[in-house]
Amino acid sequence: MIKRLSAEFIGTFWLVLGGCGSAVLAANFGGDGNPLGIGFVGVALAFGLTVLTGAYALGHISGGHFNPAVSFGLWAGGRFPARDLAPYIIAQVLGAIFAGFILLQIASGQPGFMIDPSAAGAFASNGYGAHSPGGYSIAAAFLCEVVMTAMFLIVILGATHPRAPAGFGPLAIGLALTLIHLISIPVTNTSVNPARSTGVGVFAGAQAISQLWFFWLAPIIGGLLSGVIYRWLGEKPDVVGDAR
Amino acid sequence: MIKRLSAEFIGTFWLVLGGCGSAVLAANFGGDGNPLGIGFVGVALAFGLTVLTGAYALGHISGGHFNPAVSFGLWAGGRFPARDLAPYIIAQVLGAIFAGFILLQIASGQPGFMIDPSAAGAFASNGYGAHSPGGYSIAAAFLCEVVMTAMFLIVILGATHPRAPAGFGPLAIGLALTLIHLISIPVTNTSVNPARSTGVGVFAGAQAISQLWFFWLAPIIGGLLSGVIYRWLGEKPDVVGDAR
Amino acid sequence: MIKRLSAEFIGTFWLVLGGCGSAVLAANFGGDGNPLGIGFVGVALAFGLTVLTGAYALGHISGGHFNPAVSFGLWAGGRFPARDLAPYIIAQVLGAIFAGFILLQIASGQPGFMIDPSAAGAFASNGYGAHSPGGYSIAAAFLCEVVMTAMFLIVILGATHPRAPAGFGPLAIGLALTLIHLISIPVTNTSVNPARSTGVGVFAGAQAISQLWFFWLAPIIGGLLSGVIYRWLGEKPDVVGDAR
Amino acid sequence: MIKRLSAEFIGTFWLVLGGCGSAVLAANFGGDGNPLGIGFVGVALAFGLTVLTGAYALGHISGGHFNPAVSFGLWAGGRFPARDLAPYIIAQVLGAIFAGFILLQIASGQPGFMIDPSAAGAFASNGYGAHSPGGYSIAAAFLCEVVMTAMFLIVILGATHPRAPAGFGPLAIGLALTLIHLISIPVTNTSVNPARSTGVGVFAGAQAISQLWFFWLAPIIGGLLSGVIYRWLGEKPDVVGDAR
Repeated sequence: MIKRLSAEFIGTFWLVLGGCGSAVLAANFGGDGNPLGIGFVGVALAFGLTVLTGAYALGHISGGHFNPAVSFGLWAGGRFPARDLAPYIIAQVLGAIFAGFILLQIASGQPGFMIDPSAAGAFASNGYGAHSPGGYSIAAAFLCEVVMTAMFLIVILGATHPRAPAGFGPLAIGLALTLIHLISIPVTNTSVNPARSTGVGVFAGAQAISQLWFFWLAPIIGGLLSGVIYRWLGEKPDVVGDAR
Repeated sequence: MIKRLSAEFIGTFWLVLGGCGSAVLAANFGGDGNPLGIGFVGVALAFGLTVLTGAYALGHISGGHFNPAVSFGLWAGGRFPARDLAPYIIAQVLGAIFAGFILLQIASGQPGFMIDPSAAGAFASNGYGAHSPGGYSIAAAFLCEVVMTAMFLIVILGATHPRAPAGFGPLAIGLALTLIHLISIPVTNTSVNPARSTGVGVFAGAQAISQLWFFWLAPIIGGLLSGVIYRWLGEKPDVVGDAR
Repeated sequence: MIKRLSAEFIGTFWLVLGGCGSAVLAANFGGDGNPLGIGFVGVALAFGLTVLTGAYALGHISGGHFNPAVSFGLWAGGRFPARDLAPYIIAQVLGAIFAGFILLQIASGQPGFMIDPSAAGAFASNGYGAHSPGGYSIAAAFLCEVVMTAMFLIVILGATHPRAPAGFGPLAIGLALTLIHLISIPVTNTSVNPARSTGVGVFAGAQAISQLWFFWLAPIIGGLLSGVIYRWLGEKPDVVGDAR
Repeated sequence: MIKRLSAEFIGTFWLVLGGCGSAVLAANFGGDGNPLGIGFVGVALAFGLTVLTGAYALGHISGGHFNPAVSFGLWAGGRFPARDLAPYIIAQVLGAIFAGFILLQIASGQPGFMIDPSAAGAFASNGYGAHSPGGYSIAAAFLCEVVMTAMFLIVILGATHPRAPAGFGPLAIGLALTLIHLISIPVTNTSVNPARSTGVGVFAGAQAISQLWFFWLAPIIGGLLSGVIYRWLGEKPDVVGDAR
């Protein structure tokens, strides 16, 4: 169990360091209007590649969740035992916070670096309302996080199904996270992962911390929802589809 | 059959929510000239990744069409029974419209959001002539949609052929849709999928609705065309090619 | 043989329509400075994806060359019979020219479209000296095209080698073409493919046509060079490498 | 052994020519503010694709290290014999320097090209402090290079582990290098590879050369660190993870 938890710690560390790190260090390089910066496309790619690479590297050790909403969704889908939920989630949150800490050490090596806790998306934190990058309402943000996490779990449960092509799961799952970021960074800075929100949120000031409950609630609801849906959809197929 | 249709509903929902969602929410983030927005590259990537992820997750249930032109093309190519065409297409259109509805709920959570029905590409709708993003004529738009859909079906029929490498179909097919968007967003905002056009078109105002016939006709012609071509090309090979 | 040649025709058509089409229609959408356009990153991705998708779809029919320099390189590497060189290359050039013709029909559907034959990279043509996008000298252009084509063939010959992982060839080869464009669009607008240069060059005016000899010579030299190198490198390995 | 060393020479040549070449020739095409240039996203993609394509093409010959820190890390992880370290590293450095030389020939074919040795990131060189693209301190740069190389080796050791999906190693490893660049180009111009730093550094002037020791020390420490960590993590699993 210690190796599985270590793998979850490292994988979630990588997810937060890579995804949030690209956002903090490289998204807006050179200031507004400089096309050298990687923008939201680069951040979306980075988040997805943390999961793609982490799942190929560590998935055979721990299953490669790196996300409490994924652990909950896999449990709801009948793929993960309830007794492992708590230790997995603790390892994920610790890995995420350690990543936030390391990222802060690197970022603060730039002269003039400081976190403005009142800025939307400060230190790659997630937010709604005044803390949404595009100023989206709490209702829109809630709908967005629930639906995005639900679809993330559909991809996870479907692409790792015994009848799906073997070995392609991490590719599909990682790129699903890229896709989710391409859609929803403007809405909530994209969470779909309570550990990711927590890992940087605890360093981003009072406003980010005050909204953390939201980024635990919405993704886990989304994960549970599609765990139940896919459990019905994926088991005991009525008819096998065509050749594609 | 209900599970296959549910998979088509969910997959087409994902295609429209992800592809059109990235266009509506993120393509032009921060207004004209802001390089943080994902631009056409990000939208092209998003459309492709909806199909890549959806096909890995749901392809083993329904075949992963998510597109009436694909269903028609697979039928023309001898891979899909005629009796399933109508239910598949109904499920796809319902999924697409549900995605348009959900996207509208999210998008309208931003203060000041409104759809301008007279703008080209409003709410990610497809169009030709005055409603083409680049102002392309109806003839150019027709040629473009027919050829792009035809090549899309060549890739689908070829990459899922029994002699193609197993498991790589969703990768090739998803990235083909990315490629098609990289080429043709300026021409028609890229349809190649009547359900996608319908799913957002019904919310985008009279102009978009008045052009919907076009985005049913052209993609289906393209799909049927290459179904026939590939049926000849892929069956009974005269000589097996070399090692690549 | 007719099916193999048809597959080469269609695949090269797709390469030129997709790669050059993305450059002509979408690279600079909205004029200079508009970040919605796909830029060189999008064009590089498009070229690579034409080969990735075409090779998965048609590779099992014709081998998926789509490029005279590839056919020559595979011949030099002992993978392709000399008697098939001429018919393959004719099919490739015809497919490329047909793509240039179709692209011209689509592009000219935009009001105000015209080709300026004196502009570097006009209609996605290749060039050196005054016709290089970045103004690179003929010597630099020659070195660049030879080395890029040579490395392209190393990837093709290596990734389709019996000891390479099965099925990943089109992925590696397509993304190698993306990589080559990421490096060398500024130098020559990137050819590494005489058929691609010819397919748009014949529509791009006298200057482009007058430089076509160069984009037959340099890529074929590069292809032959690495065919010979890889023939030595890949055959009869002295020691099998480690696990990666 | 000569073929293995030739493969390392060619692969490292490709890594430096492609990665640094995209940075020198294409990242900032047209000058500041021109969105046609490939920016840091394009450079990140290029670096990753050199390894992805090189490892599929040459990995079955030499193992596809292309990086002294990788060779050290694989040795620390028990996957590479100590006696091969010196010849591999010499071949890598020679390939990298040859790439720097060829790149200089191509780049200097543009009128007005010159290297400004005092500019951060001149000729794609790596640097810290005044030579960091974002002005990051030596401590932040050291932490960043150690952590990035350590995670790179975790991915390499994990994705090539016998229990990881077969054939996906080069995909995961190449995209890990893309991810690392998406995060850390602003900090050090991203090394994680002493051969890459040396290959262009020797042509970039006294400042770059004076910092080369740093880009040997930090990546090798990172590589050794995770070699030891993964050796514990990957061997003798206590419990096999779930289905993902």
